Amino acid sequence: MLPPHVVLGTAYYPEYLPRSAGDRIAADLDLMVAAGLTAIRVGESVWSTWEPRDGVFDLEWIRPVLDGAAGRGIAVILGTPTYAVPPWLQRAHPEIAAERRSGVPVPWGIRQEIDYGQPAFRFHAERVVRRIVERYRDHPAVIGYQVDNEPGVLLAHNASAFQAFVDRLRREYGDVETLNEAWGLTYWSHRLSEWSELWRPDGNSTPSYDLAWRRFQAERTTEFIGWQAELVKALRRPGQFVTTCVAYDRPAVADVPLTSRLDVAAGNIYVDVQDGLARPARPSRLEPGWIGRSVAELFLAADRVYGSRGEPFLVTETNATAIGGSHQNRPPYDGQLRQLAWAMVARGARMIEYWHWHSINHGAETFWGGILGHSLEPGRVYREIAAVGAELAEAGSSVAELTPDVDVAVLWSNESDWALQFQPPLATPGGSPDKASYRTIVGAFYGGILDAGLRPGVVPVERLEAALSAPVVVAAGMYVAPDGLLDRLVEYARDGGHLIVGPRTGYADEEARPRVAPAPPRLGEAAGVTYQEFENLDSALPVTGLRGQATRWAETLIVDDAEVLASYQHPGGERRPIVTTKRCGAGRVTYVGTVPDTELAAALWTASYGESRLLAPSVTALSAVNAAGERLWFVHNWSGTAVVVEPPGFEQFELGPWDVRVLRESVQGEAQ
Amino acid sequence: MLPPHVVLGTAYYPEYLPRSAGDRIAADLDLMVAAGLTAIRVGESVWSTWEPRDGVFDLEWIRPVLDGAAGRGIAVILGTPTYAVPPWLQRAHPEIAAERRSGVPVPWGIRQEIDYGQPAFRFHAERVVRRIVERYRDHPAVIGYQVDNEPGVLLAHNASAFQAFVDRLRREYGDVETLNEAWGLTYWSHRLSEWSELWRPDGNSTPSYDLAWRRFQAERTTEFIGWQAELVKALRRPGQFVTTCVAYDRPAVADVPLTSRLDVAAGNIYVDVQDGLARPARPSRLEPGWIGRSVAELFLAADRVYGSRGEPFLVTETNATAIGGSHQNRPPYDGQLRQLAWAMVARGARMIEYWHWHSINHGAETFWGGILGHSLEPGRVYREIAAVGAELAEAGSSVAELTPDVDVAVLWSNESDWALQFQPPLATPGGSPDKASYRTIVGAFYGGILDAGLRPGVVPVERLEAALSAPVVVAAGMYVAPDGLLDRLVEYARDGGHLIVGPRTGYADEEARPRVAPAPPRLGEAAGVTYQEFENLDSALPVTGLRGQATRWAETLIVDDAEVLASYQHPGGERRPIVTTKRCGAGRVTYVGTVPDTELAAALWTASYGESRLLAPSVTALSAVNAAGERLWFVHNWSGTAVVVEPPGFEQFELGPWDVRVLRESVQGEAQ
Amino acid sequence: MLPPHVVLGTAYYPEYLPRSAGDRIAADLDLMVAAGLTAIRVGESVWSTWEPRDGVFDLEWIRPVLDGAAGRGIAVILGTPTYAVPPWLQRAHPEIAAERRSGVPVPWGIRQEIDYGQPAFRFHAERVVRRIVERYRDHPAVIGYQVDNEPGVLLAHNASAFQAFVDRLRREYGDVETLNEAWGLTYWSHRLSEWSELWRPDGNSTPSYDLAWRRFQAERTTEFIGWQAELVKALRRPGQFVTTCVAYDRPAVADVPLTSRLDVAAGNIYVDVQDGLARPARPSRLEPGWIGRSVAELFLAADRVYGSRGEPFLVTETNATAIGGSHQNRPPYDGQLRQLAWAMVARGARMIEYWHWHSINHGAETFWGGILGHSLEPGRVYREIAAVGAELAEAGSSVAELTPDVDVAVLWSNESDWALQFQPPLATPGGSPDKASYRTIVGAFYGGILDAGLRPGVVPVERLEAALSAPVVVAAGMYVAPDGLLDRLVEYARDGGHLIVGPRTGYADEEARPRVAPAPPRLGEAAGVTYQEFENLDSALPVTGLRGQATRWAETLIVDDAEVLASYQHPGGERRPIVTTKRCGAGRVTYVGTVPDTELAAALWTASYGESRLLAPSVTALSAVNAAGERLWFVHNWSGTAVVVEPPGFEQFELGPWDVRVLRESVQGEAQ
Repeated sequence: MLPPHVVLGTAYYPEYLPRSAGDRIAADLDLMVAAGLTAIRVGESVWSTWEPRDGVFDLEWIRPVLDGAAGRGIAVILGTPTYAVPPWLQRAHPEIAAERRSGVPVPWGIRQEIDYGQPAFRFHAERVVRRIVERYRDHPAVIGYQVDNEPGVLLAHNASAFQAFVDRLRREYGDVETLNEAWGLTYWSHRLSEWSELWRPDGNSTPSYDLAWRRFQAERTTEFIGWQAELVKALRRPGQFVTTCVAYDRPAVADVPLTSRLDVAAGNIYVDVQDGLARPARPSRLEPGWIGRSVAELFLAADRVYGSRGEPFLVTETNATAIGGSHQNRPPYDGQLRQLAWAMVARGARMIEYWHWHSINHGAETFWGGILGHSLEPGRVYREIAAVGAELAEAGSSVAELTPDVDVAVLWSNESDWALQFQPPLATPGGSPDKASYRTIVGAFYGGILDAGLRPGVVPVERLEAALSAPVVVAAGMYVAPDGLLDRLVEYARDGGHLIVGPRTGYADEEARPRVAPAPPRLGEAAGVTYQEFENLDSALPVTGLRGQATRWAETLIVDDAEVLASYQHPGGERRPIVTTKRCGAGRVTYVGTVPDTELAAALWTASYGESRLLAPSVTALSAVNAAGERLWFVHNWSGTAVVVEPPGFEQFELGPWDVRVLRESVQGEAQ
Repeated sequence: MLPPHVVLGTAYYPEYLPRSAGDRIAADLDLMVAAGLTAIRVGESVWSTWEPRDGVFDLEWIRPVLDGAAGRGIAVILGTPTYAVPPWLQRAHPEIAAERRSGVPVPWGIRQEIDYGQPAFRFHAERVVRRIVERYRDHPAVIGYQVDNEPGVLLAHNASAFQAFVDRLRREYGDVETLNEAWGLTYWSHRLSEWSELWRPDGNSTPSYDLAWRRFQAERTTEFIGWQAELVKALRRPGQFVTTCVAYDRPAVADVPLTSRLDVAAGNIYVDVQDGLARPARPSRLEPGWIGRSVAELFLAADRVYGSRGEPFLVTETNATAIGGSHQNRPPYDGQLRQLAWAMVARGARMIEYWHWHSINHGAETFWGGILGHSLEPGRVYREIAAVGAELAEAGSSVAELTPDVDVAVLWSNESDWALQFQPPLATPGGSPDKASYRTIVGAFYGGILDAGLRPGVVPVERLEAALSAPVVVAAGMYVAPDGLLDRLVEYARDGGHLIVGPRTGYADEEARPRVAPAPPRLGEAAGVTYQEFENLDSALPVTGLRGQATRWAETLIVDDAEVLASYQHPGGERRPIVTTKRCGAGRVTYVGTVPDTELAAALWTASYGESRLLAPSVTALSAVNAAGERLWFVHNWSGTAVVVEPPGFEQFELGPWDVRVLRESVQGEAQ
Repeated sequence: MLPPHVVLGTAYYPEYLPRSAGDRIAADLDLMVAAGLTAIRVGESVWSTWEPRDGVFDLEWIRPVLDGAAGRGIAVILGTPTYAVPPWLQRAHPEIAAERRSGVPVPWGIRQEIDYGQPAFRFHAERVVRRIVERYRDHPAVIGYQVDNEPGVLLAHNASAFQAFVDRLRREYGDVETLNEAWGLTYWSHRLSEWSELWRPDGNSTPSYDLAWRRFQAERTTEFIGWQAELVKALRRPGQFVTTCVAYDRPAVADVPLTSRLDVAAGNIYVDVQDGLARPARPSRLEPGWIGRSVAELFLAADRVYGSRGEPFLVTETNATAIGGSHQNRPPYDGQLRQLAWAMVARGARMIEYWHWHSINHGAETFWGGILGHSLEPGRVYREIAAVGAELAEAGSSVAELTPDVDVAVLWSNESDWALQFQPPLATPGGSPDKASYRTIVGAFYGGILDAGLRPGVVPVERLEAALSAPVVVAAGMYVAPDGLLDRLVEYARDGGHLIVGPRTGYADEEARPRVAPAPPRLGEAAGVTYQEFENLDSALPVTGLRGQATRWAETLIVDDAEVLASYQHPGGERRPIVTTKRCGAGRVTYVGTVPDTELAAALWTASYGESRLLAPSVTALSAVNAAGERLWFVHNWSGTAVVVEPPGFEQFELGPWDVRVLRESVQGEAQ
């Protein structure tokens, strides 16, 4: 479906321009061709343009764009516009408004204000999608479809959603007594005597309820996207693909089931640039969220998209320049866009689409910069991207369909993330519950892999077996874990793998209830440690045995039968173990009872890989294998200072400021 | 009613455990006996278990617990479950939901979401209470009852509550003209022409209104608890007591009238441990609230419970280990639980009940740790508590029914606290109104008493005369004060007492209106000072004359006829007095126009007691007299470093890290 | 209408005092006379006193005040009480409650809770205003009227307001297609198919919508005040003036059209004193808002009132002492009140009215201090103000009707302020959008004028031509600017003026849409620079070429044809220009692509004025011309340390701590 090379593209919205800007379609497409952009995404935001009035369609406005693209060899991904409903639909059917709190509709005026379970929405959505796809499926430019856009932005509390939730519980639990027991509803007199007594989520304080609610909301998103994907699949021309762009931080997204309904996974990867990309990483001024704040978060984001289906993927949106609110303008330094593109390619990206071609002169995203700025004149950013286009064109198919090499596979559990948002183990510096606890814990381990010069991967727990082919597997922060998962991890170690267990793993069962069992449950025997107590750390504590510090959290490990790799001085008196390791069958289990700081996280892999393989503090070197079986190395210098590196098997060479080199292992030292 | 020794106990919730944990009642009770726990509180949280459906009762589920307790000599406090209403009652009577804002019901899903003035609630509450008490009053294990739990959690804005408030005003003021004058309603056109025009509290900006509203809400709590206490008293077996557990920081609690409706005062005293207990105290990372953040706040909390009725009391809840949200895990250091228990005994505690026996595996309080953790296996915390149990058993009746010795009595005024929450004199470091102003001011003086090595006490203004038997009395932050109270304080000084007046005292009358009179009103002549101006201090200012600093607030004292004990350099130019003292009849009045820092607060007592009696910076030494007339000293080392002390009249001895010794004055140097 | 000298006065509320305070009118007025206070404002807050019941009036209560004033030569400004509606009106017409969010009425209990577009409000307001004015227009004490009070406190979202907004859009745009194009509603499917589809402002994310909404809300305020002013003008005695007091930071105020409906502009100028008045200025602990936080903000506030009509003005309220919440008590240092009075006189104040005579003993403003404190006894503040009264009396008409001299005129654009509140370019230190962006940018340039020893002025864009008579004009942060305005500025430079352009100027058109044009739009050719990129600065960056630093924002200037005055080292690599200048016809255009720090802002004027004229770091020296053509200099020492100065043309003299001298240029060295 996709061309055999990595596609560089952009979201393109000529319809947004004021009339005074004139017809720029031909000029824009020519500029794209000159920059090596070979794909555009169109049409996904303007239902009110496709269908200005109820049942009155204008399908022809986009034809000049498609024709122009086809004439220039630019592929088109056609979007369905269902994430932004037109005012006439809001007017006629106010009931489609989503409710973030029960009975309180989200006010109109932005986008995605709707509950996509509403029949009035579905009826109109189906009609407009059908009309668009039927009109253009045969257009030669169209290679695929994006249905909707960044779904799952909110948890809909509408009455019908809540009643569907109750029905789902009835199907799952059968009767209220079973639910009472499963959720522990004896506590605080929450026991139900019949289903109609279930309280709305607004005031809920029961963790098991919240986890069920989050699962249900993610399933609704999967169902909606699946429904629309099926609709388009039934209409499309053979060879066209269907996807949607996933914003992985959205609250109502479970990426594995969601992307299973599509032909290819596609993620939106935004990254804070400038010194946000410096290595060693500096403290970010951004909160965790939709913008990656470091090189580690960039790679982790890409690996999550790869991990959703375990295969190469699309980057449907990424920043061309400064992105975010009117107060968040940070254009990339020279070279950084090139670094970002190669970084995503290195992790398996088959397409990289910039968001977006030109800055918009109105609307909420006025200051989300485009390849062209508000003046619509090509400038520095255009030139930087054109350089990327030229390099990708030269590289051709050799860098497409890559399978990243993985030294250490990190497990990802959306359910643990949800559960630890509801009951965060970590505190913010100000003492509040830190809703990013899960991502912080996993991110600490992931970052350590990079900092040790090793090659990480991310595997969602739904695809557990894929992880277990790696020589080392990390299960950290995995609070919600069924018995089978924990047992399988021990089996992996027995069979020769090195299992690294991070804090909180397995503490709760699939109902988010702490297990009535010695901790770490089901893993303690293999790890040779147990704990009854745990505590938050106000300040980082240095460890001995390994370099680095224990931060934010410490489990009070009692060593049954394990080697203590690192310990720390507890302010209450004694020295306490915090990292242990134990042979386990043919393999090994290492237990880490804390959130390791950068140094400690980098030191954890010594048992498997010896000392650090890091080429230089500012450098990452990751590899992947292409369809031809060649191993490519992507060596980045994430700094403004040139550095000389000598990767094993290659000759020494210099990387300039914010530079990247692609090396082919079979032909040593060859530079892209 | 209570055994003649100090009772160690725990809240016990076997009904919370998942069925998979099996029947642990016998094992749990055996473990309690082994640890010296001789009392349990049961049943207060599970109305939906007592009455699973409207009018369908299951009273037998608790019998095995009571039988098992009786068989082991464990006393039972039986709770009535009215603070947590069952879902079936919410379903049938949604009108019982409390409204924090008018017309906005608190959503279901936690507990205490109800307005306990609602008839539908009262009807069902009475029925279930009656059934429970009738069923078990004759059970030999039951020594008393706890009605409801931590009442007064919110200010109910329901229509019926508001109309009752209007009716109360009508009774008190008679007509709207009187109210207009009393509340100053000419201001901003708030004058009422009839009662129906009184605005709802939601938008109120009138301080007198707010104070009346707070009084009314506290009266509602007293009425509800009183009603339920009377109900149980009419049913109970002779010799059984009735109490409730009071969380003193709840917004709708007036402890003196509330506890007057009970047989014994009972408070829940939670304390931040680890370095939160270090002396000298470190800045806390917690906001003021339900957790005591220092040794001073621990003693002050205990003294408030003693003060409610001026007699020994129960600690119905205290932390066995880490307590609070999932992100607030701080288990005590070795020795600290022993320190806490003896500290509460020293202030008159007759019972100390840990909350709770085992950590819960679900619900909002999953991470409020129990004596047993989630694994239900005894560990370090169990062992620490068992050591306390053994010491208390050995001490026997000699440490029960203690009357603390008081060098300095600190007055407490709930009404001033309420008024200064509405119009806080202090600013937070960020410049916001500091709603903890009253507690901060009083706490500064209280802490200074401890830091000077003296023995504080707390007396509520409702029990003023009890305070006036102390040689020194502190009236600080007492913004709301009727004429009679102020005049009585001056009389106390004239009669030989040493009155210490802190900032804001007497500034407003009983309607929270600043008096039209020279400040400090009614006290100025006796103090020999006056002031017209006052100001907030952004940073602490060192004083001369005494050690220490003036912080946060300064009244611009004009000395008429007083000795200046301390003064400071004002940034606007001149040196200004800030602490003065004056002979007054046979006594003395000292005026403190600021919030003293630790040093200054400790220096204030020089006039009465000379230099500091502090044994060591980390040490407190408090005394009390038991029923046999013996004076006991409780000497704590609140630090991780051993210290050698020599209390007057005793031989020198060493206190280990986080250690405590109990000394009997009649037999010098005897250690517990 | 006003006396020929500067009037010192006070707001006077004898009706607020408790009855127990007795009748103080005669004593108060005598005290005022003794202090040189010759005007009072009365009656504007107590509708419920004027009209205790619907249609029942009590107009006589104020007569003793008016008679007493007349008897003592005190002029009276009679207020109409419409900003505080009585409870009986709220009871009968709850629909008058304003809605800050659609459908959510502001709760009663403070003041200004109403939507003044409501007919029920207007009917009653007209009746009470008519009755009051008719009753007292012939009273000899009454010299003028204040209608309402600090209007525009909120944006009313009531249904009728919203529908009037829709109607206004219909009149302005004619049809929805025109609106769709003007506001860019293709974006996110916001295109309307008919007017009824316009969404409520609550969820709006479209900048053009927001700007229109703000304009509409300001027009409503102008209409209401104009309506009431016309009503009073039709009734008043000849010679009496009509004004209202304007709080310039209110969200629904456009000062130029508003004050055009009055006889004289009047502003409320509150200032943070003590070290808030120190120069060089220290970082303020207050957020930007209704309190000026520095000497620069004081002068800027006064200049804004002058600028509203370009003529001398009234200060209807200013702080006598500490002002603000109960936690914000900062009485002025000795001398500061005198400094403030002369500062306002220097900028053209014809009257200075303290708010207020005595502190109030109840209500929201209990701790907004009066000339007399709660005790009602004259003290230090009274004495300080009496000294001001004496000096003003001595100065007589020579300091009234002043026209300030202006070296640099700073343009002010309310619409840019509104637009940059919706899309702030600057970030707070914590990374949030900084809603004070516009005021921060303009304030930086204004402050620099003072810091260079020059004389600033403020001219609203509605009165652009008035600015262009100054030799230097600043257009900074002027994001919203029509073509004609920008072209006129270039013409000004061509004709010989020095135009200083600050960041963001002209970036957007009158619909708040960034222009599709090279930036700075329409100014770039004259400035000789262009930019495509811009960025937020996390930390200040030192510049070379001029002293000082670039802060918070940097436009990436590309120099076409200009001299680089200052440049900085960009962390991404190269050195970048940030201040440039270019000859332009007979004049000059200087471009400043950043928010200059204090030093850089002071250095900007070198091209026009050479090096700094600052007499001393703590000193300001501003001049104005009186009606007799004399030039007066007002020389302030804003510090607690005496300083010797020698203004050009005067002999050297010493200014004491917090001192001020008034010099007459025609008679060198003469001191007031």
